[in-house]
Amino acid sequence: MDENNLTAILLLSCLDQIGLIAKISQFVSERGGNIIDLDEHVDQVEHIFSIRVEWEMKKFSILPSQLKSAFAPLAEEFGASWDIKFLEEKSRIAVFVSKYDHCLNEILWRNKIGEFPVEISLIVSNHPDLEPLAGHYQIPFYYFPITTDNKTEVEKRELELLEAHKIDTIVLARYMQILSPLFVKQYPNRTINIHHSFLPAFAGGNPYKQAFDRGVKIIGATSHYVTEELDEGPIIEQDIIRITHRDTIESLMRKGRDLERMVLAKALHYHFQHRVLVRGRKTVVFE
Amino acid sequence: MDENNLTAILLLSCLDQIGLIAKISQFVSERGGNIIDLDEHVDQVEHIFSIRVEWEMKKFSILPSQLKSAFAPLAEEFGASWDIKFLEEKSRIAVFVSKYDHCLNEILWRNKIGEFPVEISLIVSNHPDLEPLAGHYQIPFYYFPITTDNKTEVEKRELELLEAHKIDTIVLARYMQILSPLFVKQYPNRTINIHHSFLPAFAGGNPYKQAFDRGVKIIGATSHYVTEELDEGPIIEQDIIRITHRDTIESLMRKGRDLERMVLAKALHYHFQHRVLVRGRKTVVFE
Amino acid sequence: MDENNLTAILLLSCLDQIGLIAKISQFVSERGGNIIDLDEHVDQVEHIFSIRVEWEMKKFSILPSQLKSAFAPLAEEFGASWDIKFLEEKSRIAVFVSKYDHCLNEILWRNKIGEFPVEISLIVSNHPDLEPLAGHYQIPFYYFPITTDNKTEVEKRELELLEAHKIDTIVLARYMQILSPLFVKQYPNRTINIHHSFLPAFAGGNPYKQAFDRGVKIIGATSHYVTEELDEGPIIEQDIIRITHRDTIESLMRKGRDLERMVLAKALHYHFQHRVLVRGRKTVVFE
Amino acid sequence: MDENNLTAILLLSCLDQIGLIAKISQFVSERGGNIIDLDEHVDQVEHIFSIRVEWEMKKFSILPSQLKSAFAPLAEEFGASWDIKFLEEKSRIAVFVSKYDHCLNEILWRNKIGEFPVEISLIVSNHPDLEPLAGHYQIPFYYFPITTDNKTEVEKRELELLEAHKIDTIVLARYMQILSPLFVKQYPNRTINIHHSFLPAFAGGNPYKQAFDRGVKIIGATSHYVTEELDEGPIIEQDIIRITHRDTIESLMRKGRDLERMVLAKALHYHFQHRVLVRGRKTVVFE
Repeated sequence: MDENNLTAILLLSCLDQIGLIAKISQFVSERGGNIIDLDEHVDQVEHIFSIRVEWEMKKFSILPSQLKSAFAPLAEEFGASWDIKFLEEKSRIAVFVSKYDHCLNEILWRNKIGEFPVEISLIVSNHPDLEPLAGHYQIPFYYFPITTDNKTEVEKRELELLEAHKIDTIVLARYMQILSPLFVKQYPNRTINIHHSFLPAFAGGNPYKQAFDRGVKIIGATSHYVTEELDEGPIIEQDIIRITHRDTIESLMRKGRDLERMVLAKALHYHFQHRVLVRGRKTVVFE
Repeated sequence: MDENNLTAILLLSCLDQIGLIAKISQFVSERGGNIIDLDEHVDQVEHIFSIRVEWEMKKFSILPSQLKSAFAPLAEEFGASWDIKFLEEKSRIAVFVSKYDHCLNEILWRNKIGEFPVEISLIVSNHPDLEPLAGHYQIPFYYFPITTDNKTEVEKRELELLEAHKIDTIVLARYMQILSPLFVKQYPNRTINIHHSFLPAFAGGNPYKQAFDRGVKIIGATSHYVTEELDEGPIIEQDIIRITHRDTIESLMRKGRDLERMVLAKALHYHFQHRVLVRGRKTVVFE
Repeated sequence: MDENNLTAILLLSCLDQIGLIAKISQFVSERGGNIIDLDEHVDQVEHIFSIRVEWEMKKFSILPSQLKSAFAPLAEEFGASWDIKFLEEKSRIAVFVSKYDHCLNEILWRNKIGEFPVEISLIVSNHPDLEPLAGHYQIPFYYFPITTDNKTEVEKRELELLEAHKIDTIVLARYMQILSPLFVKQYPNRTINIHHSFLPAFAGGNPYKQAFDRGVKIIGATSHYVTEELDEGPIIEQDIIRITHRDTIESLMRKGRDLERMVLAKALHYHFQHRVLVRGRKTVVFE
Repeated sequence: MDENNLTAILLLSCLDQIGLIAKISQFVSERGGNIIDLDEHVDQVEHIFSIRVEWEMKKFSILPSQLKSAFAPLAEEFGASWDIKFLEEKSRIAVFVSKYDHCLNEILWRNKIGEFPVEISLIVSNHPDLEPLAGHYQIPFYYFPITTDNKTEVEKRELELLEAHKIDTIVLARYMQILSPLFVKQYPNRTINIHHSFLPAFAGGNPYKQAFDRGVKIIGATSHYVTEELDEGPIIEQDIIRITHRDTIESLMRKGRDLERMVLAKALHYHFQHRVLVRGRKTVVFE
């Protein structure tokens, strides 16, 4: 990370009022920042202002390390929820998996060719099956067998591990365990799941079987932030593919694999580029 | 309809057994029929054989009027559900509407330019609003105001009207009333509805508001046969469009209008070309 | 049009420089304007800054009629190409057609239900076929038969007609004549065509036949601004549908009709909402 | 491969005539074959009959090895082009690559999890870069540096290698060399390429740059059989994704990677399941 050549990204939302953009853009330009991309929207029903601003720090008059404290007074004036990140600052992520390899394989390959600006610090699994894949990409693999009895204890050890590795974001890449509310609370808006249906249809278990039984003509996949309510978190990205009467549950699973990994990858791309702002149970995705 | 130049369409399903296609295709070719299109599929889990056969009757050795009775023994041998129709034989349809005009307008226009091989015999509505549109296309319009009190009585009169006009198929083109089970039973697999969501998500009322509140990234529309269970009938066609955080309930309604009329039109196209075979709560659509 | 409750839209592009957004947004907020939607982008290769700003004029300190002259000095300082329009100010448009009715029908219907904030002032055609459709929507219809000999003369009369009606935008809704360069020059970036292929594939005549002969698996439609080079103007919107070996040229035309009218309608929607900025032979579409 | 439990697939096309299906299906059922899937179509313009029949050989009265010679007389009677394959019989394939790994990685991974019923016998490249990836999946890798001078000689050695390995199908997985006509002729309808545009748009080199310069709103990918005319072979599969003014050539390449591997994988799936029938410069794909 070249400290002298960073790209800053501000995500902010607050009650709408006149002059917000002028003040924010002035904050940037007065300090010599060049705005590359700005996307703003006001929800006309709830009067909520949401913005994403991306600017070059090359000639910025204050240091990256001082940027947040310099901006804080303005944000306080607005009564805003906000964060500033640097595009070049690699997130540290942990990937949770079970037995299916397609999502993990996709993430590891994309990371290797440089698509994701992240460091995959570790892989956690309740099954040993994917250890060789982790090994191929030289990522530490932690195997925690989970039973009804040891779940609380295991989650505690997992959380310690995440903390020790300073993990920013958890990716559930077809992890077949439900995280406890206690766990979920530790990484709010930072735990991303892929569900293999177009939520809210076919929430819960076996969505492909549910879809097959209902006789739908399209199947979907949904990537969302994990909240305490199962499959109810803010949706980041969804997509679908068409199916026909010739499809079996097996072919739905085969076709769905492609959909799941593409939708998860797209959601992660948005998240890692700081394009996602969570507002209640919805997201604003600045594409 | 030129009796000497018809195209016959057989839709048939039964328990799978060896030799079904040979016997059916032999039935056609022995009588001088030329098969233009044949699509067959065996559900390997339930062992159900489904087939659609389309053939030219030009040089057929028996008259169209005798075709069904000639085929009946074979169908009986198979223990099959089946029907034979002629592509050129116009269905007589009734369109039920309320206040929205987009689906009705679409159907009337497509029919006028010859896309649908049907005769729209009448339009039924619980509101007078769309009478001028019906008038423009010179289709009889029947206005039946409905209250909780008169519903049973009104449905009785509607059914009499449908019978008097020898209606084959009912199209609910955004009809904002729920038909009673008694009514539904009269036109099994012949009443087609358009629902403005990707069922089973957002069944029931106000699907666009439900979608907006849930924060989904895609919205859909579903055309299905009406059964006694609301929004649970066999799905004929579904499609979706992408939406973003910029969309309001109003823009969802605007975008959804396009989706609804396209999905309904596609479902009607399949139905009128005798491409849809209903099996339980699912359809086989021979595209 | 309520003069006291307008929404202003600025479209502007210029060479990138620090402080542009600050100055523009300050211009708005200092005069009491509330920015509802702002979308900005810098092309990092050509260093071109492009922006669309939408704001409420309700409490604006200067009159709508004075807005342009008030903003002009700033635009001059930037060396910008720019325009300001009001969302509520209806464009006056002319639709050019030949024999096909699907695009015209779509435009007239959408306009009637209020989707387009425009006044369709007149319809021009080189065939008399669509006069009844124009009559149904009560739009003046002008029939100009065109031959090789009279083309220059006819275009002259058409241009006089357009001027007399103060036309802003011309829509070529499957108009089967090529406009002369002289004509095209009069309405730069204000003449919108729909071409029935995914340009640049299958430019020129008979694109459905070209597509059929090539055996493609998708067909498309493209809406673009008309320039002197046939089918080479800046693209506003494109979309596609899948086809199969079962399709004939006739079914491509049938399916294509739906695509053409949807793509044209979407392009018009963007254009009429002042979401399209033309830069050379490309467009920036602020969705 | 369990010789007693095979699934036979017939692909056949000939001039249309009455009784073809009856004779073919009788051939199967008389010998105890159970047809699982039959898809037939008659091109009404050229009067060409095309069919794919899939049947279980479990109780078939003749041996798999004798099936072709048993069917030959019937095919001769029809004057048909035809072939019979067994679904369970693994094709032997060679993958040609250069430096990009995304298509190769996709093919190797899918093959490993059992999606493709093939044996990847070898990988051929004009660059050494992808040898480690081949090694990870334990596939022999052959590196042939190519210059203008040695091209004829290298192709000769490659052809010997393919023959020695009894290769059925060649996959060009972003192979950046043009095969000579002499080479192409050896594997007619058995060499599959992926081109990174929706052909026929942007044929030739640098399609993403061409797309960027033209300002299209969608980009595509096309998988086709290779013929002597560059980018003109019969198309198997195409798909597209939407892009915007925010996209750069780099982001087109990134998004295009996903499209390319999905389209190539789908085309290979059709090819390996014997669902593709080539007729002239077009394909019939029995989905």
